[in-house]
This record gives sequence, C-alpha cells and structure tokens, in this order.
Amino acid sequence: MRIGQGPKIVAVIWGDRLLELARAAKEGGAQVLEVRADLFEKVNLADLKKRLKEIKRKVKLPIIATVRRRDEGGGRRYTERQRLHIFRSLMPMVDAVDIELRSGKIIGEVMREAKRRRRLVLVSYHNLEKTPPNSILKDIACRAKQIGADMVKIATLAKNRQDVARLLSFTYQCPHKPLVTISLGRVGSISRIIAPLFGSRLTYGCVEAPAAPGQLDVLHLKEKLEKICVT
Amino acid sequence: MRIGQGPKIVAVIWGDRLLELARAAKEGGAQVLEVRADLFEKVNLADLKKRLKEIKRKVKLPIIATVRRRDEGGGRRYTERQRLHIFRSLMPMVDAVDIELRSGKIIGEVMREAKRRRRLVLVSYHNLEKTPPNSILKDIACRAKQIGADMVKIATLAKNRQDVARLLSFTYQCPHKPLVTISLGRVGSISRIIAPLFGSRLTYGCVEAPAAPGQLDVLHLKEKLEKICVT
Repeated sequence: MRIGQGPKIVAVIWGDRLLELARAAKEGGAQVLEVRADLFEKVNLADLKKRLKEIKRKVKLPIIATVRRRDEGGGRRYTERQRLHIFRSLMPMVDAVDIELRSGKIIGEVMREAKRRRRLVLVSYHNLEKTPPNSILKDIACRAKQIGADMVKIATLAKNRQDVARLLSFTYQCPHKPLVTISLGRVGSISRIIAPLFGSRLTYGCVEAPAAPGQLDVLHLKEKLEKICVT
Repeated sequence: MRIGQGPKIVAVIWGDRLLELARAAKEGGAQVLEVRADLFEKVNLADLKKRLKEIKRKVKLPIIATVRRRDEGGGRRYTERQRLHIFRSLMPMVDAVDIELRSGKIIGEVMREAKRRRRLVLVSYHNLEKTPPNSILKDIACRAKQIGADMVKIATLAKNRQDVARLLSFTYQCPHKPLVTISLGRVGSISRIIAPLFGSRLTYGCVEAPAAPGQLDVLHLKEKLEKICVT
C-alpha cells in the first residue's frame, strides 16, 4: 500500500461475507479495504487468513487490518495478548495495520513486526466522548510519529459544529503528517466529506451497516468527494 | 439589520427587475438582500431610492447597499466622489452598507454617516488574483475592525484547495469577528456552503446570474446549508 497523494476512500468490512463485501466496496469506489477483526462474531484466524489471501487475489485492493480496542470503539473485548496474536497472524496477508496509540503493551512489537515485513502502520486515537483541545491532539500526533507511525489517525466525537471546524482547522495546520481525521457522530458526519479538503488522507465508508457513528456508505462518499473536487 | 447568531443567506440583486428579484430571493430562502449599485446599467438615484423603499415595504428583508470598486470586482467604474454620493443617497433606505477597506478617501465619511444613521458597516476586502497569507488577512481584518467595521468581509481567489482550506482555517481562528469569508472561483465554490461551519456569518447567493465567480443560487445554497445543519 502506498500512501500516495490525495485522499483515498476506505471501505470498512467484516463478517462472513467478506469477499462479497470487498467486491461491492471496490465497485462502489473504495480504494482501500479495512478489515475489522474485532467486529467478527467469531474469528477463526486460519480461515480469515485464507479469505484475506483470496480477497487480495480477486479484488486487488490494499488491505488494512484493524483489531480495535473496546475502549476506542471496538466490538469484541480482546486482551492485549490476543490482539497482538491477531495482528501477527494477519500481518503477512495485509498491506497495513491500524493500532491505537494507547496500546502501550503491544504497540512496540506490532511496530517492529510491521517494519520487518515492510507493512504500513497507522497509529490511531479515538475519543468517543469529546474532541480534546488542539494542543492535546497535536501532542498525540507528535507521539504517534515519534514511535514510528507512517500515518496518524485521529477520530473524535464532535458535540457541535465548533468541534468539527476546530478539528478541520487542526488537520490543516498540524505539522505531523500524513494525517487522517474524523469528527465522529451525527454533527461530525460532514467531516467525512470535507476533511480531505483539509489534507486528511483517508475517509472511511461502510458497505452495509456503519462501523462508527456518522459513517457514510462508500458510494455516497465517492459522489460527494467528486462533487467538491477532492478526488 | 441585526447581525444575530448563525449564518445568513444574502441574495445579490441589481437591475431593472429589482422588486421581482427581491421577492424571488425571499421565496428561495434569502434572509438579507444586497443591492449592487455598481452592476446597474444606469443608476437613476431618485428612482433607485423609490424602489428600495418599495422593497423594504413589500419584501421586508434587510438590505445592504454596495457600490463595489472596479478593482475589487465591481461593474461600472465610478470615481470615489461618485461612490460617496451613491452611498449617501441610498443610506437612508437601507440597513447596511458594504465598503472596501481600500476606499481610503471616502471610507471615513461613509463610516461617520452610517454611525450617525445607525446603519451597519461591512468593511470588505476582495482579491481576485490570489488568497494572501493568513498573516496578511489577519492584518486586514484587524484594520477593518479598528476603523469601525461592524463586520469584516474577506473574499479572495482560491487557486487550489489548499487556498480554500487555509481561508477556512483562518475563518475559524481569526479573533476579529464577526467575519465573512469567501473563496472565489470554481474551486472555492464549496466555501459558500462550508464557510458558515467555520463561523462565516453571511453567504452570498444569486437569484439569476452569478455576481461573482463561483457564486451559487440562493435556493441551492439553502438546501445545502440545511443538509450540513449550519442554518
């Protein structure tokens, strides 16, 4: 996966119909797939690895593997040890991993493994309660870069449109690039379309059910992005 | 005219069918009218004053009178003396005037007259060639406030989406409020919808032909603003 220029649409997928969803995502305009291992009802790692290989071969889109922590919006509650095991197992089949900055116990190991295999690492920060002050967000982005993030992702709940405007303004000004930002929640939904205008490099869409509050579907996202000429 | 909270849609009108356009503007969702005296083919001041009175009575929307300088996007080339005369003549019939910061010779007089009559003054800056650095824009907004502007308006050409993002980021951060910002040109068109999210207080739309590059029509503007919940 190359980071490249311009924003990319990421389709968030999980579950039994992974290949089907991956195909629908590509057809709808997604340029990257994110497989959310934490959202599967049950993960059979051997089976998931096989299916990721099949998707790589048949759908030919870069894949990000994510095992979101429960306290940052994840589905299943995994121990850090389990998460590390999933990351290690999937790493050979994917192009990138997304790991929370807060994963203190395992982030170093995931980072080393990714660098060794030449996989990209997105270091992410999610706040489902509020959008912290920009000085704190800047510090988060700085720390993520310092530990080796290829890309920093910040997703925070917007309580009002001031929160949205502030995060977008931060996106434009933050020196720790490349950066992805998302204002979560209903009022933040607009950020999924306009954050790319401010330099956010990825925007996440769903194929069927949203994986996060305010997420739009891939096709809708593509049309909107084209309209404002950021693709 | 009260500045109030939240963004207002301003319909830009001029010409022979002023009353008809004012009515269509109101119907389309405009909350303010801007009458562009510089865009009339020929201005008969006595007649225009009568028509403004009629619009006030029948359409009941606040009116801003503008006599745009040619070098800031205006139509007819008036001398400063002529512009001052038009401002003075129309002031009793309108709620606000818009005058360029660059109108060094007459801005003091227009300001005094407006304060005496308790009219609002928008002090504007237009740059049809580029979007100057934010430090310069901040200085412009500061000077406009210093000379007594009730509202500062900055409209600058966006050559690319970085220019748009930068002006929006400026809008959010500039301490010299209330502020109106517009990125002119095709690529800047999006700013007419999203600048209100960043705190811009007015957004200008046309009823028929656009009066500035990238201007959208009032109805379209209203729908879009409602969609992103800034109205």
